[in-house]
Amino acid sequence: MKITVVRNVLEANDRIAQENRQLLNEKGVYVLNLMSSPGAGKTSLLEKTVSALADRFRLAVIEGDIQDTLDADRIAALGVPVVQINTQGACHLDANMTKEALGALDLELIDIIFIENVGNLVCPAEFVVGENIKVMILSTPEGADKPSKYPLMFKESAALIINKVDLLPYVDFDLEMAKKRALALNPELRIFEVSCKTGSGIDDWIRWLTLQVELFQRDAR
Amino acid sequence: MKITVVRNVLEANDRIAQENRQLLNEKGVYVLNLMSSPGAGKTSLLEKTVSALADRFRLAVIEGDIQDTLDADRIAALGVPVVQINTQGACHLDANMTKEALGALDLELIDIIFIENVGNLVCPAEFVVGENIKVMILSTPEGADKPSKYPLMFKESAALIINKVDLLPYVDFDLEMAKKRALALNPELRIFEVSCKTGSGIDDWIRWLTLQVELFQRDAR
Repeated sequence: MKITVVRNVLEANDRIAQENRQLLNEKGVYVLNLMSSPGAGKTSLLEKTVSALADRFRLAVIEGDIQDTLDADRIAALGVPVVQINTQGACHLDANMTKEALGALDLELIDIIFIENVGNLVCPAEFVVGENIKVMILSTPEGADKPSKYPLMFKESAALIINKVDLLPYVDFDLEMAKKRALALNPELRIFEVSCKTGSGIDDWIRWLTLQVELFQRDAR
Repeated sequence: MKITVVRNVLEANDRIAQENRQLLNEKGVYVLNLMSSPGAGKTSLLEKTVSALADRFRLAVIEGDIQDTLDADRIAALGVPVVQINTQGACHLDANMTKEALGALDLELIDIIFIENVGNLVCPAEFVVGENIKVMILSTPEGADKPSKYPLMFKESAALIINKVDLLPYVDFDLEMAKKRALALNPELRIFEVSCKTGSGIDDWIRWLTLQVELFQRDAR
């Protein structure tokens, strides 16, 4: 009984996600679904990424939080449109919440939407929302064992940002072990070593993301 | 429909948790449900706590993980009984999983059971399992905004361990702000500033926990 309910919820979610994707394809909008544990650096990465791409692309951000608007306020300060989703306790965004948020944006005037999911290394990976790619962050203080313990998100993501590499001298994080375990789960995973604090590694990430968006735009034409 | 299903699941969970609690009271077993984000230091705190209390109390640990036995292996190395729960994808422990794990332990020979929940700052707080107290860890790299963003766990916990204070010189963590926000949500919350790496603050935590267990044992007699 419980399993049937879960399956129906996921099937309904997939259907709405496909509708979102179709709408976004028609409008030529690229969507990135950003996921991580709480405090791994999602908003910090978005601040760096929005600043780097704002001259080249028309950007918008959807902020998913259980409650409050702290992250949305940080992003709005950069001068891009932000839509806040408060999940009222729910531990992930779903396709229906995303659909409502898309309705609050003028998709004709947007090239890329960044979706910042709820901070949670488990549940967000189970719910597609209509994104082109999922990107996840693992921060060095979390430990190199995380791919083995939370495999689904590593399997579902196109790119892994290993953030807070500036803390490597002070934490017990085996970088090579983390990469090896992540790639064992997902050999296609693209890995970037980044510090949102110092800015190191951000350029590589921006170059790769720019290429993904350009490939999408070329196919959309 | 969806809301009804969720309510039924939570009511069924509460009922089983009460049965667990009744059994544990009869056997005089104190249970601590330990929760945090992935990588905040649950297993490290348990290693320190088990080592400090093993001479005085008879201990056991229930390890909750989505998959793998990495944490259980670390705890088993300390020579205490460990039961592994693999949730097979689920993002929290529930009362029924805990009931099965309790069945694998000889409760006549145990004073304290530590339950290490799945690494997740959201969902575990919604599911009681029959514990005496919930304890949560917030690690300094996660940021001082976490109480505002994930309020339920701070509200539900009897104690907050602020871990990784050895990283304070290297991360942007406003300790006073974090404590203020946590206490605004839960004025009864007992806060400990700890480094599981250096051992600082562990003694205070052990003293407080010992007192809680002694009070429980006195009432149980």
